[in-house]
Amino acid sequence: MKKMTIAVDAMGGDNAPQAICEGAAQACAAFEDLEVVLTGDRERLLPLVEASPAAVRSRISIRHADEVIGMDEHPSAAIRRKRNSSLRVAMEMVRSGEAQSCVSAGNTGAIVAGGVLVVGRLPGIDRPALGAPLPTIERWTFLLDVGATVRCKPVNLYQFALMGSVYAERIMKVEAPEVRLLSNGTEEIKGDESVSGARELLSKSRLNFMGYTEGDDIAWGRSDVVVCDGFMGNVVLKFGEGLMYGAKSIISQEMGRRILPKVGMLFMIPMVKSLWSRFNYEKYGGTPLLGVKGVVIKAHGRSRAPAIKGAISAARRFIEEDGVGQIRAELDTGAGPQGESRGAQGQAEY
Amino acid sequence: MKKMTIAVDAMGGDNAPQAICEGAAQACAAFEDLEVVLTGDRERLLPLVEASPAAVRSRISIRHADEVIGMDEHPSAAIRRKRNSSLRVAMEMVRSGEAQSCVSAGNTGAIVAGGVLVVGRLPGIDRPALGAPLPTIERWTFLLDVGATVRCKPVNLYQFALMGSVYAERIMKVEAPEVRLLSNGTEEIKGDESVSGARELLSKSRLNFMGYTEGDDIAWGRSDVVVCDGFMGNVVLKFGEGLMYGAKSIISQEMGRRILPKVGMLFMIPMVKSLWSRFNYEKYGGTPLLGVKGVVIKAHGRSRAPAIKGAISAARRFIEEDGVGQIRAELDTGAGPQGESRGAQGQAEY
Repeated sequence: MKKMTIAVDAMGGDNAPQAICEGAAQACAAFEDLEVVLTGDRERLLPLVEASPAAVRSRISIRHADEVIGMDEHPSAAIRRKRNSSLRVAMEMVRSGEAQSCVSAGNTGAIVAGGVLVVGRLPGIDRPALGAPLPTIERWTFLLDVGATVRCKPVNLYQFALMGSVYAERIMKVEAPEVRLLSNGTEEIKGDESVSGARELLSKSRLNFMGYTEGDDIAWGRSDVVVCDGFMGNVVLKFGEGLMYGAKSIISQEMGRRILPKVGMLFMIPMVKSLWSRFNYEKYGGTPLLGVKGVVIKAHGRSRAPAIKGAISAARRFIEEDGVGQIRAELDTGAGPQGESRGAQGQAEY
Repeated sequence: MKKMTIAVDAMGGDNAPQAICEGAAQACAAFEDLEVVLTGDRERLLPLVEASPAAVRSRISIRHADEVIGMDEHPSAAIRRKRNSSLRVAMEMVRSGEAQSCVSAGNTGAIVAGGVLVVGRLPGIDRPALGAPLPTIERWTFLLDVGATVRCKPVNLYQFALMGSVYAERIMKVEAPEVRLLSNGTEEIKGDESVSGARELLSKSRLNFMGYTEGDDIAWGRSDVVVCDGFMGNVVLKFGEGLMYGAKSIISQEMGRRILPKVGMLFMIPMVKSLWSRFNYEKYGGTPLLGVKGVVIKAHGRSRAPAIKGAISAARRFIEEDGVGQIRAELDTGAGPQGESRGAQGQAEY
């Protein structure tokens, strides 16, 4: 059996390092070919690793890193300066080939900056994108960018569409994925300059591009891939999350106020559980950073062990399907416009 | 008793003219000081008006207009060309002072274009904004712009914040409303050029400005006023609406699959009804167009009679509180930056 090594930033995220170590152990229990290297403070990690089930203990190791990048640090400054941070050490392992992927629940901007500065951009890609697979009403929708590149030029959005389409086809197993651009209306006169420029590029591409889509279409899942800039995607993703948690809290509030519903709730529990499990992002955990020369998966900052396990599974699938190679191949076909000069695109936060 | 006259575009919206006429009659029944002038095709409107309850019949009249602006027409072209359209005729009544307000459920872009071209911009305002009062978990949040000005410069966002603050204080009766800018993170390094420029302007203003807010904060209602460009606001509003309808549909799906929940649902009905009525935008109906010299209220395109009644009530409150005068007064205090040259701001769709 071929081994797979994944470097996991054990110090990143609200529940690090405990939840990270537990999630790594759960992932090793699920996948026999998996080896995890936890990066971080050896002294803090050792007791947590030693608490892992015996069956997986031999497949979890520690790579000492004595610095941590905080959630509020300036992304690129931190990734440049803290050469011995748990995140940077994990990324260096991907660059050197020691690990096939790295996973982190830490500072999003630093993960993006590290992807570009340490792992490196794919040739032909001007800016990276973070993609989020969203459970919607009709199907899974892959939304990108959700926060890597704040504002985008048409060519950035075009490249995001291309990468999203490859992801949907290879990882989500959707044939000829329907790709749409997020806009403020479906008519051609809608959109701003960057969206309408991207529309033009995409309509000449080989992608299954269907034009603009609106906010409510995301909720219904009318597309396999929805493309927008990182500012918009970030707001949409967080708004959706907020509404999900909000709905939970409101139901509890209402329950507290009524007697009859409490009786009703006994009957409703299976349904509520089913809905929650269908829409709970924690199960799916990982958002891939696309456009870099390695597999980098960002887990939610609030991740607990199951979400970390989910992010590691996403990394594993990405490696098995050779997601990076597929994107590279698609770029090499020369479909659509080539990127302009490196580094001059969009506005990024690193 | 002082009379109030509101011009209502009887031909705009998915359910026009029937729902519009019914909504107008409901509003007249609720407010004794109200007179409604319906603009549109007299022959089609007459039987609908004659069907109104006798008590309100004398307060509803028709102003003939033989053109209609379709939902897909180019906004400014349509408003310029169709001088005898139901929407333009209603707006001309506001300009001439015959009506204190106009209400329409028609083409959003044409309402914005008509607001600027027919009713006229307020001196000191570079671009108008559509504001939407949202029922959130903690309180009402006034979100603007939701679609009038696609992309914004800092000064546009600054002016939106000022108008939103006046609206929240006067119409929503919130003391010292908390105003935040929608961004992709709360830290100062987040945002793009236009958001960070607006942040700078706002932090020097007299408004109760609290910095950036994120997508999930909208869901929780952490602010009284949330400011963003019309592209973002439009997507957020539609996404929220889509999720609301989606939740309804999923609950029905799940109900179909389970026996026990059906029994449970009998107990749950009061709770579901209460939630629905709390979050159903149809009750609130109207989104004001701010920054023009008159009271212009846009109703949702899908409005049925109660939403039209809601939009007319919103117009009435706006007139009573002298919303336009209040915004004008706030501008006159000279707080913050003055607008730059007219017409050179942002990107609008008219």
